[in-house]
Amino acid sequence: MILKAPEKNIRRYGKAEGTGYQSPEVWSKVTGKAVYGIDLNLPGMLYGKILRSPYPHARIKKVDTTAAEALPGVRAVLTGAKLESKPFGIAVEDELPLAVDRVRYIGDEVAAVAAVDLQTAVQAIKAIKVEYEELPAVCDPAEALQEGAPQLHDNFPGNVAWQRELVRGSPGDAFTGADLVVEENFTVPAIHQAYLEPISCVAVDDPYTGITLHTALQSPDAVRKIVAGVLNYPLSKVHVSGPVMGGGFGGRVYGNLKVYILSALLAIKSGSPVKIQLTREEEFTAGRPMIAAAIQMKMTVRRDGTILGREADIITDNGAYSAQAPWVSKTVSERNDSVYRIPSIKTRVRLAYTNKIPTGQYRAYGNQAANFATESLIDMAAKKLGLDPLEMRLKNCVREGDITVHGLQIGKCGLDECLKAAAKEIGWDQKKEGRGYGLSVAIHANGSLVFDKNFRGASALARLELDGRITIFTGEQDYGQGTHAAFAQIAARTLDVSPAQVTVESKETKTAPFSTGALAMRQTTIGGKAIQLAAEDLREKIFKTAAELAGAPVTMENGVMCSISGQELALAEVAYYNHSATSGLSMTGEGKFVPEESDYDESGYGNISIAYSYAAHAVEVELDKTTGALTVHRLVAAHDSGRIINHLTARGQIYGGVAQGIGMSCLEGYLFDEGRVANASLAEYKIPTALDLPEIVPIFIEIEDPAGPYGSKGLGEIVMVPVLGAVANAAADAAGVRVTGLPLSAEIIYQAISGWECEQ
Amino acid sequence: MILKAPEKNIRRYGKAEGTGYQSPEVWSKVTGKAVYGIDLNLPGMLYGKILRSPYPHARIKKVDTTAAEALPGVRAVLTGAKLESKPFGIAVEDELPLAVDRVRYIGDEVAAVAAVDLQTAVQAIKAIKVEYEELPAVCDPAEALQEGAPQLHDNFPGNVAWQRELVRGSPGDAFTGADLVVEENFTVPAIHQAYLEPISCVAVDDPYTGITLHTALQSPDAVRKIVAGVLNYPLSKVHVSGPVMGGGFGGRVYGNLKVYILSALLAIKSGSPVKIQLTREEEFTAGRPMIAAAIQMKMTVRRDGTILGREADIITDNGAYSAQAPWVSKTVSERNDSVYRIPSIKTRVRLAYTNKIPTGQYRAYGNQAANFATESLIDMAAKKLGLDPLEMRLKNCVREGDITVHGLQIGKCGLDECLKAAAKEIGWDQKKEGRGYGLSVAIHANGSLVFDKNFRGASALARLELDGRITIFTGEQDYGQGTHAAFAQIAARTLDVSPAQVTVESKETKTAPFSTGALAMRQTTIGGKAIQLAAEDLREKIFKTAAELAGAPVTMENGVMCSISGQELALAEVAYYNHSATSGLSMTGEGKFVPEESDYDESGYGNISIAYSYAAHAVEVELDKTTGALTVHRLVAAHDSGRIINHLTARGQIYGGVAQGIGMSCLEGYLFDEGRVANASLAEYKIPTALDLPEIVPIFIEIEDPAGPYGSKGLGEIVMVPVLGAVANAAADAAGVRVTGLPLSAEIIYQAISGWECEQ
Repeated sequence: MILKAPEKNIRRYGKAEGTGYQSPEVWSKVTGKAVYGIDLNLPGMLYGKILRSPYPHARIKKVDTTAAEALPGVRAVLTGAKLESKPFGIAVEDELPLAVDRVRYIGDEVAAVAAVDLQTAVQAIKAIKVEYEELPAVCDPAEALQEGAPQLHDNFPGNVAWQRELVRGSPGDAFTGADLVVEENFTVPAIHQAYLEPISCVAVDDPYTGITLHTALQSPDAVRKIVAGVLNYPLSKVHVSGPVMGGGFGGRVYGNLKVYILSALLAIKSGSPVKIQLTREEEFTAGRPMIAAAIQMKMTVRRDGTILGREADIITDNGAYSAQAPWVSKTVSERNDSVYRIPSIKTRVRLAYTNKIPTGQYRAYGNQAANFATESLIDMAAKKLGLDPLEMRLKNCVREGDITVHGLQIGKCGLDECLKAAAKEIGWDQKKEGRGYGLSVAIHANGSLVFDKNFRGASALARLELDGRITIFTGEQDYGQGTHAAFAQIAARTLDVSPAQVTVESKETKTAPFSTGALAMRQTTIGGKAIQLAAEDLREKIFKTAAELAGAPVTMENGVMCSISGQELALAEVAYYNHSATSGLSMTGEGKFVPEESDYDESGYGNISIAYSYAAHAVEVELDKTTGALTVHRLVAAHDSGRIINHLTARGQIYGGVAQGIGMSCLEGYLFDEGRVANASLAEYKIPTALDLPEIVPIFIEIEDPAGPYGSKGLGEIVMVPVLGAVANAAADAAGVRVTGLPLSAEIIYQAISGWECEQ
Repeated sequence: MILKAPEKNIRRYGKAEGTGYQSPEVWSKVTGKAVYGIDLNLPGMLYGKILRSPYPHARIKKVDTTAAEALPGVRAVLTGAKLESKPFGIAVEDELPLAVDRVRYIGDEVAAVAAVDLQTAVQAIKAIKVEYEELPAVCDPAEALQEGAPQLHDNFPGNVAWQRELVRGSPGDAFTGADLVVEENFTVPAIHQAYLEPISCVAVDDPYTGITLHTALQSPDAVRKIVAGVLNYPLSKVHVSGPVMGGGFGGRVYGNLKVYILSALLAIKSGSPVKIQLTREEEFTAGRPMIAAAIQMKMTVRRDGTILGREADIITDNGAYSAQAPWVSKTVSERNDSVYRIPSIKTRVRLAYTNKIPTGQYRAYGNQAANFATESLIDMAAKKLGLDPLEMRLKNCVREGDITVHGLQIGKCGLDECLKAAAKEIGWDQKKEGRGYGLSVAIHANGSLVFDKNFRGASALARLELDGRITIFTGEQDYGQGTHAAFAQIAARTLDVSPAQVTVESKETKTAPFSTGALAMRQTTIGGKAIQLAAEDLREKIFKTAAELAGAPVTMENGVMCSISGQELALAEVAYYNHSATSGLSMTGEGKFVPEESDYDESGYGNISIAYSYAAHAVEVELDKTTGALTVHRLVAAHDSGRIINHLTARGQIYGGVAQGIGMSCLEGYLFDEGRVANASLAEYKIPTALDLPEIVPIFIEIEDPAGPYGSKGLGEIVMVPVLGAVANAAADAAGVRVTGLPLSAEIIYQAISGWECEQ
């Protein structure tokens, strides 16, 4: 075929279309055509199903798969004994693909089958006979840490999965002769991420290219690394190919590793593609919800409201296996401390193994649990000292130039302005009769410099297509939050074209640059910076080639190059010239964003991120004292996430994050009957509906931060953080008493205001 | 997740595993697990079906789709009138996606539907009412060229789709007072490529990424270019994603454009993925078989056997639309001329529109049709002059340093050796009683410098993976011929690793470099050279980074780097160091092979390729004179394709190409009953089975050619060329009379030896 040189079709694109650009990527979703993992169906595909433990703790005496294997249509049966696997894990290596001699929670994976249809797979699972010997179980984390408690893992004595003690400054001195000490025990239950689409995976094993996992993940590279390790495959022989993602919120960073590993093992054993699709009940009973935390916290404050010190003793509930719980516990124990100028800190955190569902992470990584405790104490202190909670916060909150108690370096910071704006908008000075008001502030990091010290940044490729369009290759994931729209805008701005001319590709690990993924609020700041650098590199290459083509230096505007002689060149012409000169290699810009190393030390002190985002929320509630029912009427979310790249998707982040914050504050939470999940369905586990939500008022304090692309910073996670404290404070303001255990359900509030004993 | 630095796991790979390397890519095929286009089944997919003309030539008066549209389950109905398309085409723009006012052959596309299942689609097609007014048809190409014949296309008067007259040297003088003139009319019928898997396509339209055609193609980039033009989509919004390819042989270079265009249009209209799968009958009646040719040829020869001149008048049968027939006709008219030193040439070729199936290309692009004619004349001349056909060929065949009658520059050339080796191996000097013997020679180009003057080469990327493995990205396609094995070997040799460490990716146009594709025998020579250059570039980058890491210059052996101090580094270590330094951009080598421009002039004179391959075949046959049945006992295929990279796959090419040559020589050919294909099934259209094949003896004359990678050249197409002439010559030798129309069926040969009138 002959590819003709493009006609001289000079088309002027509009300038970057404001900051409300909507990427056509969303159209397939709103028209119902998007293909989610749940929709996937490959030729010759088998259906996998997992047999799970019915006991919270038991010894496996015998697994008999004879009857299952004999069932017509069954193609593979796996048991732990046959696999001979080494333990694997995320933070800690404490899991096996299938239990070998012990099960540790109701839901623990015991066997897996692949069959020609789902019915046969279910039948086969039922046909597997397992003899168990029940063992004493421990389900309460505090009990689990006590001497004599049943032990879950031989190599984790005392059921301590992870622990840490932190001392900064002189906490002992701070509490000596304090003007005021406030102290309380706070509890936050385990929370499911409740993404719309249950996790699924279709695994395909190819003798040439290796294993491909067709599954949507926030961090495909993290998952394939672990799966490759378990399978003992070279890393470049494990790929993730992402369908459209039906929500993640942290729950799809590592997703459900057992699903990926078992579908891969079944695919290898059967020689056919295998799909495992979790049911909603499996999501609730064998997913990886956010850890529950019990936070005992006390704070010492000077009469004028200055915070002098704080002590905390935190127990987090790991469940039977660790997943990310150690890292989340670490965040619970420290991140929130940096939002105020607290000179002295003493914190102990212990993560306890219990015979319950293993835990993972949720949007904001536990920062919100600590926010609930700290912000409650602030209001308690302000009340006792007769201070305005707003003034007390303004007195203590961090400002540009600060180095916080854990060594975070506060750069551009609009926290003060956020507080003032939120308070003004909620009507802090004109409070309505019969309403309760609450405030809360938050800080959150934009990615981590210390998580993997050898991989602190991100990279991207920007490719000029033959038709003059731009394709960005990135490992950063968009699962609805609008990252790709922002990326298109960043590239478009750099290249002076319309964002509609830019397509962002991220779903294939075979071709996307390696990435840490959609987590830690790192994508816009770090991933976006790499895209800016890639587009800048491409722009330089375009200029160079165009100058060669035009025989004179060029400038670019609206996607059209102009030489000094006034000659006009379309980007497609430059692309075609390069195409011819390279025999088909596309002109590609490389973006390598490698932040400087951190001064982080072994105690966990140091600057852990290139930038921080800030927020202040203000809430107005109404309480029905006859029932305890709380109505959140209005929530003002004032955010400093630097320059906002896309107001449309940024507002969307605020609506979504606030909704989840309202859910966590007022409605959600795992209920356990010993080790059994007692509310394992969306009928029993309440997530907020539109009717449960307040009017949400986003305010952006747009202080450009040089760290991120075009002065922008992250927003996705921090949105959820201040909701808990603000709602709790508003509820306390309305009720006159304080509830310290979430969720703030009508019965709990009623118990509190009526003085009844509260038993969860 | 933390990606740990790889352990110091120095693994020594074996040297490139000889030249019989078998890529694991084939394993999925031999185990039945490979997913071909025919197996594809996407979520929400509809089934497309095409309504075809029952008349060879007719006016469309009315198309009524009301009943079809009203059928439950029908999601889209397309007619030509509704589409408002511009004509498109490959060599000539003479086709519409659907006929508007006229149909020109039995099979012409009139309407298309998409429905929820195939049954409904078939029902819908039947429910469409078309009123036709029959028009006079012309099915014989010679008649079509005569005055007064029915005209097919208004803008191609006289039914001339394409024509050319060529004069080189002084053909008039050459024939004046010649020692000998031999002259004959030769005919070659239309031939179907008879690939194992009928063509199919699943088209998906996505509002963000555009149209993706899930279909296996030899030249995905050529097809998406045309489809983008028809759809009026930007080129970068049309992608091809290739499943495993079930054979091509030229038939999948452009494949069946109507299938891709109509599935795309139906997908756009219905909003769902649409699959069109041709039946075998549709393949035979509406595919794109190789053109039939009638070649009137005369040759003048000096008494000593020196060829002095040649004249030819060729009529090729285009069918109703052109596809690639003009380009194939061009090859028929000239390529074979360059295998001998012929000083004077006069050729006319006319491509005639007829009311029959449109035509395309087959392995060797028509070179074999001319070979049949020329090689028959050579033997006829030798017989008349009492010369040994071997000696006559040795006297005339081209040799290194020659510039041929059409300007081809003969570089390294082992044609002489091929002839001698083939003759020796067949026992030319010890012929067996009762057997017939024939020889034939061929030349074939390795890609074209003139087809697209702005795109003469190829490019590739070589990527170092984090585990030290290598991935090659190329647009060159492997459909079973073993290209990827050879590419892995080229990269492995360049990087001094094992070919098993190399994976070749080519199936996604989104990420493969733009390529001309698997055609014109260009892949090893041109595509392979680009891969060598990419691997060389990667090697340099590896050396640079490794030296940085080791703090001293390094050398590489067996995939392990050694510094001058003796320090050893695994490739994985170098990859990880780079990974860290670039935040995840893989180290990638670029290979840009851009051959120099050709001196090709407007008359078609000049050097059209960077290299040429050569072959001589020798055949031993036996004839049953009582029935005319010909048995080919033995075929010696001596080839100069430079240094052979992979003897295993090279032998495979010879076995396959010879088999197809035997088919074309002895069995195959379209039969027409006016415009209707009379043998539209594999039961009636005979392709050779194992029982029809001779013993095949491959001989490689390995003369390294500096043009290709490591001295190698192309083999795939030339294999088929000499079979026709050699078999025809052996048959004539055995029969004592010459059959000049293919295939050499028993009845035709019997008619010839019995003196009966032959009527095909």
